[in-house]
Amino acid sequence: MINVAIFGYGNLGKGVEAAIRQNDDMCLKAVFTRRNPESVQVRTPGLSVYNAEKLLEMQDEIDVLILCGGSATDLPTQTPYYAQYFNVVDSFDNHANIPLHFDAVNKSALSGKKTALISAGWDPGMFSVNRLYSSCIQPEGKNYTFWGRGVSQGHSDAIRRIAGVIDARQYTVPVEETVEIVRRGEQPTLTARQMHKRECYVVAAEGADLSAIESAIKTMPNYFEPYDTTVHFITAEEMKESHNELPHGGFVIRSGVTGMEKEHKNIIEYKLTLDSNPEFTSSVLVAGARAVARLNKEGQTGCKTMFDIAPAYYSPLSADDLRHTML
Amino acid sequence: MINVAIFGYGNLGKGVEAAIRQNDDMCLKAVFTRRNPESVQVRTPGLSVYNAEKLLEMQDEIDVLILCGGSATDLPTQTPYYAQYFNVVDSFDNHANIPLHFDAVNKSALSGKKTALISAGWDPGMFSVNRLYSSCIQPEGKNYTFWGRGVSQGHSDAIRRIAGVIDARQYTVPVEETVEIVRRGEQPTLTARQMHKRECYVVAAEGADLSAIESAIKTMPNYFEPYDTTVHFITAEEMKESHNELPHGGFVIRSGVTGMEKEHKNIIEYKLTLDSNPEFTSSVLVAGARAVARLNKEGQTGCKTMFDIAPAYYSPLSADDLRHTML
Repeated sequence: MINVAIFGYGNLGKGVEAAIRQNDDMCLKAVFTRRNPESVQVRTPGLSVYNAEKLLEMQDEIDVLILCGGSATDLPTQTPYYAQYFNVVDSFDNHANIPLHFDAVNKSALSGKKTALISAGWDPGMFSVNRLYSSCIQPEGKNYTFWGRGVSQGHSDAIRRIAGVIDARQYTVPVEETVEIVRRGEQPTLTARQMHKRECYVVAAEGADLSAIESAIKTMPNYFEPYDTTVHFITAEEMKESHNELPHGGFVIRSGVTGMEKEHKNIIEYKLTLDSNPEFTSSVLVAGARAVARLNKEGQTGCKTMFDIAPAYYSPLSADDLRHTML
Repeated sequence: MINVAIFGYGNLGKGVEAAIRQNDDMCLKAVFTRRNPESVQVRTPGLSVYNAEKLLEMQDEIDVLILCGGSATDLPTQTPYYAQYFNVVDSFDNHANIPLHFDAVNKSALSGKKTALISAGWDPGMFSVNRLYSSCIQPEGKNYTFWGRGVSQGHSDAIRRIAGVIDARQYTVPVEETVEIVRRGEQPTLTARQMHKRECYVVAAEGADLSAIESAIKTMPNYFEPYDTTVHFITAEEMKESHNELPHGGFVIRSGVTGMEKEHKNIIEYKLTLDSNPEFTSSVLVAGARAVARLNKEGQTGCKTMFDIAPAYYSPLSADDLRHTML
């Protein structure tokens, strides 16, 4: 059995709690939180919740610590710190800062002879893995990553900060015409606007200036200005009823050519359609925890990404069983 | 530079020749054949063609030997034999016999301190890799593999063996209605007939009994009887004009559920749309050759499948570059 602990009980932590139930070789030992443990209501009967301060006392009982905090402020300090004491997995998703994060975690994990997996999930994560495989097996080609249709938390938060907005949900939507062009094997160079559009659902305060809100959204640099953006004002009830879930997904397309004259087009597409973005990410983290526990047993310490881990490490089946059943 | 040699100059061997041109870190040293080398016309100016007998003399000049023979009679003997003397890659695709083939190649490669990769390609190969990843990250779910629309060589050959048939091409086609059901996240149990249909294009000899041919095809056990099969008689000119290529493809779908009450559906789909089936397979073999050369340098000998190789090994980029550009 692999003994796992969760650090942080938000959407991701809850997803890990649910995912571990689907993996018979794993045991969820405890949830750790920086909040008052009494205030945290877990959904697994008998599951212990402790304050984060207790974590270092429990080193011997935990094979892998899954860090479920955010990439902005939690993980940049938590992962390097805990990687010295535990095998760890995180979903650090600030792409530009991954190399820095990697170096910090690697140094720490090596010093503690622990194994760390960072940036697991779907992007970064399975989408990255597919970009890599596809680039290797079709070296002459181009990668396209489309996200959506799905809720972007960052964009929803950006709308919520506008004066007069009570609640908001932003969906990132691939531009279907562009997707079709790419799927046909053309290799266009695309702008942000050509690839994605943004759909916003906004609950405004009574008496708020709706056109001012709409304009504030549509002209917001980086977040909305580079995209075709539509804004729908809805009631709080509609928000609760129709926009209460966190679906997401997207697809990575590699458009490549082969042949002596590059005369053949080959299209590779990896597509996710997720009812629950955080639960899917959590499921990847849990499979990653299995890989990390194994690698550590083999003495493979330091920081890894999904690029560095052979697929068989994620599976509870033996190499022999895998060859019999899945190859 | 990685020095590669090709054994067998059919469709796969030709694909490898073309694929190596797309990989700057590789050099194609020679083509080996069991035919008279003078009879083999390669398309790369200056490329040497030797008789297979010369292979063992050239051990020092070749880092990886790519075996491009067939799975029925060539690879079962060739791969175990040459794995003793060379790092090798093959595309052995007889799924049921993979475990046996693995054991034979493993024993031989270990004895010669060489590294072998077997069953590389797309199925087995990238499809298998996707079945594995998806099963690990969505443990409660079901895998569906659809092939096509594409030419099946085995089924085309089966038709050609019928009396009165001059030429034939068989397309395997996924049943679109079934695909839609699976993509929606239902998890049906499906018969062969529900998943695929078979389209046959046949050139008959003058005066042949067309309805007898059609009936012989449609009632052929295993090959056609379990499927809805359509037969079209065409002229030799039409065959040459419209059915001269070897397109193929297909998709692996994992339909999974997450959440405490399994309330969320998540669909993972990996899809290939290939103008050239053999050239795509060859491209995977060439990326596999890079992985094998590296693994051997690290002392990781014996037989591997794509399950056992971390994605980064297929890439010419450094781990650091990969984290910067693709994660």
